[in-house]
Amino acid sequence: MSLLHPDRLFPAEPGARAVARELYEAIGDAPILSPHGHCDPAWFAGNEPFPDPARLFVVPDHYVFRMLVSQGVPLNALGVPRVDGGETEQDPRAIWRLFAAHYHLFRGTPTRMWIDHAFETVFGVTERLSSDTAERIYDQIAERLTDPAYRPRALFERFDIAALATTDGALDDLAHHEAIRDSGWGGRVIPTYRPDAVTDPEYEGFAANVAALGRLTGEDTSHWEGYLAAHRARRADFRALGATATDHGVLTARTADLPPEEAAALYKACLERPSPVEAALFRAQMLTEMARMSVEDGMTLQIHAGSLRNHSAEVLARHGRDKGFDIPQATDYVHALKPLLDAVGMEPGLTVIPFTLDETVYARELAPLAGVYPALTLGPPWWFHDSFEGMLRFRRQTGETAGIYNTAGFNDDTRAFCSIPARHDVARRTDCHWLATLVADHRIGLDEAHEMAQALTSGLARKAYSL
Amino acid sequence: MSLLHPDRLFPAEPGARAVARELYEAIGDAPILSPHGHCDPAWFAGNEPFPDPARLFVVPDHYVFRMLVSQGVPLNALGVPRVDGGETEQDPRAIWRLFAAHYHLFRGTPTRMWIDHAFETVFGVTERLSSDTAERIYDQIAERLTDPAYRPRALFERFDIAALATTDGALDDLAHHEAIRDSGWGGRVIPTYRPDAVTDPEYEGFAANVAALGRLTGEDTSHWEGYLAAHRARRADFRALGATATDHGVLTARTADLPPEEAAALYKACLERPSPVEAALFRAQMLTEMARMSVEDGMTLQIHAGSLRNHSAEVLARHGRDKGFDIPQATDYVHALKPLLDAVGMEPGLTVIPFTLDETVYARELAPLAGVYPALTLGPPWWFHDSFEGMLRFRRQTGETAGIYNTAGFNDDTRAFCSIPARHDVARRTDCHWLATLVADHRIGLDEAHEMAQALTSGLARKAYSL
Amino acid sequence: MSLLHPDRLFPAEPGARAVARELYEAIGDAPILSPHGHCDPAWFAGNEPFPDPARLFVVPDHYVFRMLVSQGVPLNALGVPRVDGGETEQDPRAIWRLFAAHYHLFRGTPTRMWIDHAFETVFGVTERLSSDTAERIYDQIAERLTDPAYRPRALFERFDIAALATTDGALDDLAHHEAIRDSGWGGRVIPTYRPDAVTDPEYEGFAANVAALGRLTGEDTSHWEGYLAAHRARRADFRALGATATDHGVLTARTADLPPEEAAALYKACLERPSPVEAALFRAQMLTEMARMSVEDGMTLQIHAGSLRNHSAEVLARHGRDKGFDIPQATDYVHALKPLLDAVGMEPGLTVIPFTLDETVYARELAPLAGVYPALTLGPPWWFHDSFEGMLRFRRQTGETAGIYNTAGFNDDTRAFCSIPARHDVARRTDCHWLATLVADHRIGLDEAHEMAQALTSGLARKAYSL
Repeated sequence: MSLLHPDRLFPAEPGARAVARELYEAIGDAPILSPHGHCDPAWFAGNEPFPDPARLFVVPDHYVFRMLVSQGVPLNALGVPRVDGGETEQDPRAIWRLFAAHYHLFRGTPTRMWIDHAFETVFGVTERLSSDTAERIYDQIAERLTDPAYRPRALFERFDIAALATTDGALDDLAHHEAIRDSGWGGRVIPTYRPDAVTDPEYEGFAANVAALGRLTGEDTSHWEGYLAAHRARRADFRALGATATDHGVLTARTADLPPEEAAALYKACLERPSPVEAALFRAQMLTEMARMSVEDGMTLQIHAGSLRNHSAEVLARHGRDKGFDIPQATDYVHALKPLLDAVGMEPGLTVIPFTLDETVYARELAPLAGVYPALTLGPPWWFHDSFEGMLRFRRQTGETAGIYNTAGFNDDTRAFCSIPARHDVARRTDCHWLATLVADHRIGLDEAHEMAQALTSGLARKAYSL
Repeated sequence: MSLLHPDRLFPAEPGARAVARELYEAIGDAPILSPHGHCDPAWFAGNEPFPDPARLFVVPDHYVFRMLVSQGVPLNALGVPRVDGGETEQDPRAIWRLFAAHYHLFRGTPTRMWIDHAFETVFGVTERLSSDTAERIYDQIAERLTDPAYRPRALFERFDIAALATTDGALDDLAHHEAIRDSGWGGRVIPTYRPDAVTDPEYEGFAANVAALGRLTGEDTSHWEGYLAAHRARRADFRALGATATDHGVLTARTADLPPEEAAALYKACLERPSPVEAALFRAQMLTEMARMSVEDGMTLQIHAGSLRNHSAEVLARHGRDKGFDIPQATDYVHALKPLLDAVGMEPGLTVIPFTLDETVYARELAPLAGVYPALTLGPPWWFHDSFEGMLRFRRQTGETAGIYNTAGFNDDTRAFCSIPARHDVARRTDCHWLATLVADHRIGLDEAHEMAQALTSGLARKAYSL
Repeated sequence: MSLLHPDRLFPAEPGARAVARELYEAIGDAPILSPHGHCDPAWFAGNEPFPDPARLFVVPDHYVFRMLVSQGVPLNALGVPRVDGGETEQDPRAIWRLFAAHYHLFRGTPTRMWIDHAFETVFGVTERLSSDTAERIYDQIAERLTDPAYRPRALFERFDIAALATTDGALDDLAHHEAIRDSGWGGRVIPTYRPDAVTDPEYEGFAANVAALGRLTGEDTSHWEGYLAAHRARRADFRALGATATDHGVLTARTADLPPEEAAALYKACLERPSPVEAALFRAQMLTEMARMSVEDGMTLQIHAGSLRNHSAEVLARHGRDKGFDIPQATDYVHALKPLLDAVGMEPGLTVIPFTLDETVYARELAPLAGVYPALTLGPPWWFHDSFEGMLRFRRQTGETAGIYNTAGFNDDTRAFCSIPARHDVARRTDCHWLATLVADHRIGLDEAHEMAQALTSGLARKAYSL
């Protein structure tokens, strides 16, 4: 018995299905490029075993616990820590049983596909999770986790990951990345420069963060030029450890391009008590500054815009950030990106990758923009849209205007390490599904589909992220 | 000959079609739950025969007459009454002939499917409507309408309706519902509390309506606490007649949660001459108040937002409200619902059902919200989206993030009684189509698809509306 | 060998594919109606040979050069003229080689389908364009262009074009159209009244343009009534040369209906130094004025709204307008069109055709509006949405609410003359694909699908544009 049908996600019509199979056969086993994600570099530095099944699959995965919360399961019962240190479920088996009893909620979701794939391909589980099978599956996974073959580095190798980028704050000391480098282990784990804490004046402790940035770099961050120099220095530190990209989490995609003296004055104001208007303008300005630095140093710039974070005041107060309550909102790109694009959009050597949670801009704004500006490359469907239907919508809505060669391949964007092969597998199968329909429609030839499948699997990510 | 192909709306690919057939066979004949709609309780209280075919199928159905109007047929010619009592067509055969001559306009629309289904399954008509067949079909339906087997209660039973909710104003005396209850007839027809006339300060006669609410309940509605008490009393009256839900028609989904003293002052202002800003804030506040009362009394709260009513000033002046000129507009949920959700969104016992006419929020806002807040359950595709394509888009855009278990099953939402079986049949076939594609994609097992089909047909509506 | 598969764009499922084939067989060769586009009437007046392949297929086609630009090819290298007269590539073979080397970028795009179709059906090219085949294909096309059978009038006849509308400014002397009429040649080439230069106060030289309009018509355009009279006179001039429609390019679809004295005062203000607010209001007012004139003279009114023109300041400065940097933006119709619709929306003799680049309004706003207002007819998918997927989305999102009979058939909207048959072929195949799925779903009968295919190919355009 198997949880995984070999033809899953391929078109139902036999002719197109055969094409999808043929395409997948050629790329299904290609090494994984993971140029954006949230794995913890400590795993690969320390190479300690992962904890129990609940702490591997449930407690840290907001896709999982948010669905259980939606049906009335309290976060406490799932072992999600409280801000006040108050009591939460500590028994991993109790958490696992709750998860198993609610597994039917995931029918039709990507989470279900990812978990089934990880269960079977990583842990050899071939039964569907339910209350009936919960204990057996728990035991099987728990036992494997004690085996050295299930330690982070071994899994990294088993997963055939050619490169894995983590996401690291500007103030991070990168010690784990240094340890990986110095360890002699051959896995390519590289950092990504994510400076939100020092570019967003509304971030907790912004002024102190900026001061720390100064200390870390030996630059005088009390003024604008020193602050920019400090960024340049930190970007170089990251590059020295293999980084090829920066990343920026912002509520909107707004950019600005102020004259230097205005930017300097704005920076001063933001070190004191910026108004919301000033803070927003500074964030906008910093995207353009980062893009300019990218022209200088070749780092790819990623913009993750449009998520209204921590929607529930109650959950934020009780459990803190990142607890599944980030909700997308409508996001404009056509006006928002204009200042940045006017500044550097025609630079052929620059790669700016916008991501969005607002699919209405795929066909209306993003594909037309990426289909003409050399500096723009479209990021893959993000977060709730990292799914079979979501990826098909993305290709159908961008492919006719931007083609595939203005897109960046796939990102798994995950902190769920064991789901990485699953996510890439879903993406590859969906690409093959889409390409097979183009072949079946006689829009492209089969030889072209093969080249496109290679590009979608490896070439586009390699190029977009200089890997 | 038949108007209805047994495989209609199933996937074309034979493998998926077979799965859809199998699923449909198990649920196609299940009793109908109709938890939201606009049937007239007087039909079932009085059990009088329905009038002629034109007054059954054309004159009251805005889906039908709006399409004829779009091609230049005047509302007058279709017998739609005028505000000034001026002349309109009175001959039902003349109206019917116009309808028949334009029936081709409905090709590809749900209206066509609903009418064909009602023609054949209710009245035994098996010819397609056209100018050629108009008279014969008229005669056949008219004759049947004189038969006692075509009276409202008999049809209710023939349609196998397990529960039918009507929509009733807060000031309605519910006499028809009392008469149904007292009649000894076994049909379950229940009211729904729709208090727009006493919660919207811009509703015609708001102050007088509120005073009437006070008289009806014996509460002093000249102040905020009395006004809220009056709502509680009326909700109890509705519940005594079987009501399990309230419903709210609003232009936007905006909610508010003011401190009690501010709410009380706002209420006072609204009893006088509220500004548009005050009126909007009061409507927003009342959604949250109603949600709080729902926590107390267990009634499900429905929000129907986003229709700009009576778009044509000319038609409004000549023919009044609800004449097919209600046009959807872009509608935000992520910010709009936050105050209500901060107040009661984590209540596991509460069910708030948002409906929308803005499909762009399905994947972007509604599925992420319903996929995490216990109090939110997504309403089915509404109005123009109550259709084959509309329902597929809904499932494809919400299913991967919210699953099906955060959705409320189907609503027919109709005043066209004879179309109720047709609408449920279209919904069930579409559900089976969608589920069959998930099975064909190997995203779910066939056993799971069967359970999901049952849920979509009965279980989800029963749970969402406590039926 | 062939670039064109006979079943291209038909459904993959064999049953639906057979239906699509049957439908296409009946309409695939029907004469072409091209009621909106940008061909140059000079081609048909002078009947000179087209220049070289690069100047036919690359230099003037913004779909083509924007894609190459997106991958870093400079506009200079593609021979696109510079505003300052600076140097650009003049060698057509060099341009062609660049095009050929990048032809893979168009995989999956409509441009690829159009060019392959023109290559094979117009020029007999049956090899795929690439660096390897670039020279051979260039030579083959270049040779054909010297043949009299490839002159504009001969191609017009070979393409079986029954009517072709050009787009002409209000100040155009229409000399080419007069020459065509006087030439004795039988091709029907008609102008379209596009008065943006004299209706948009922010258009370069607006006051001078309006003065020129006065001279051209003998009306006193220094005041409102004379200005309106001048429009009426010019519309009559255009009608005398066969025009049946006007066209209006606007950033938003906003309309207004001011009292005459306010409109007159606004016009005065716009002749001086209008504020942006005044200019926007005047554009809005003029849409309604044009609609009123259309009620008088029967001309169809087209509104092309929602493109933010010349997004890149750098490209605008260097290469001028229309260089592929027009980016769509979100566009409201429900509020924007209300003043116009309140004024003339119920006129059964009027045809107003809104086009949009914002697909989110198809189901939400445009289909509900066109499905009830007699004066509204939906324009086909425009620009980036003139594509297989784009047309399917349009039909799926409008067909259930507006049907097909409130839509205007197909527009090719092109200045790429050789692509006209290709574009109509893609549209016809896509229509047949869509209709075949309706038949396969048993939503319509095959006999109805045939009637609908005829309507989509000829009848709807003929009616919408009075051709």
